[in-house]
Amino acid sequence: MKKTFILGICGGTGSGKTTLATTIHKRFAKSSILIPHDHYYRDQSHLTMEERVKTNYDHPDSLETSRMIDDITKLTQGKTVTIPTYDFTKHNRAKKTKTLSPAPLIIIEGILIFHEEALRNLMSLKVFVDVEEYIRLCRRIRRDVEERGRTLEMTTNQYLTLSGPMHHQFVEPSKKHADIIVPQGGYNKVAIESIVALIKERL
Amino acid sequence: MKKTFILGICGGTGSGKTTLATTIHKRFAKSSILIPHDHYYRDQSHLTMEERVKTNYDHPDSLETSRMIDDITKLTQGKTVTIPTYDFTKHNRAKKTKTLSPAPLIIIEGILIFHEEALRNLMSLKVFVDVEEYIRLCRRIRRDVEERGRTLEMTTNQYLTLSGPMHHQFVEPSKKHADIIVPQGGYNKVAIESIVALIKERL
Repeated sequence: MKKTFILGICGGTGSGKTTLATTIHKRFAKSSILIPHDHYYRDQSHLTMEERVKTNYDHPDSLETSRMIDDITKLTQGKTVTIPTYDFTKHNRAKKTKTLSPAPLIIIEGILIFHEEALRNLMSLKVFVDVEEYIRLCRRIRRDVEERGRTLEMTTNQYLTLSGPMHHQFVEPSKKHADIIVPQGGYNKVAIESIVALIKERL
Repeated sequence: MKKTFILGICGGTGSGKTTLATTIHKRFAKSSILIPHDHYYRDQSHLTMEERVKTNYDHPDSLETSRMIDDITKLTQGKTVTIPTYDFTKHNRAKKTKTLSPAPLIIIEGILIFHEEALRNLMSLKVFVDVEEYIRLCRRIRRDVEERGRTLEMTTNQYLTLSGPMHHQFVEPSKKHADIIVPQGGYNKVAIESIVALIKERL
């Protein structure tokens, strides 16, 4: 059996990593699956809503990464898996699950996917999308306020107390594990072509 | 006529950009030519030896980049060119020239190749080899002392007064023009494979 190619796309909030992941997923529409790390936010059914909103979603402990590792390993062994999904409105794991069949290309994306060595070791190519903080922050604030109905106070408070500090503690230092750093975000055509060319050659 | 692929490899002193350029040149041994920017250091015949050693070789003005642009343009038009070479022992352009025939892949490397827009605009893929300054500096000092017969005083003085400040003024800021940033220097296998895959696809 041919080895699965596992592409990891990491980067800070607002860096364009999801855009990059989606673009590459579309380029290999029939031969790839996309697994966002945030499907694996932990089940919080045992907590009240008041407690759930206090969870630090920018900290590695908020994610059940071991289950993601298990699922990806099973996929590489040719097994179909049922992965969890997350309900961001309820701040809890959703009832709905998602069934994924094995594919030659597995794309993983998230701000913390380079944090755990066991997950990193699965990846064939580690890409870090690197965009300056002021650009990412402007995008993030606009997205939260204009698309997610948050107040300006909520989004800036969250960045100041959690997302910002966690970025500097966990995300930025994990850049050193990257094989390739992609500047200019998710629309960097030449970088996309280069990643696509490598995958094509390996599939 | 098929378009020439022009690969630009930039990075600070001691970053491993020459290693990367040479590796890729070897992978396309029959279809590529390698042009280091430092072949184009300006002729200094009108200066005394005492004056020549004072030249700031880390400043863009020390290079005849316009001639490099002309030569590359001629090569892409299918013309054979005669390029200058530099004699580092005499701190002057050498008598010897080098004849280059057109090739599908032209690799350019140097610390300042991203500085001039007209040169950048010729490049199909701009790669910046990014390695932390303390690593580059240790490599540079050892190379200068062990391989180039310089004293420790000479090499550190040069870095403190010229190479260091020029790096921060010209080289580091030019990283923003890169399509791809390669961490870990010239032996980053996955990055090399990705660059090679893109070139193969385009040639």
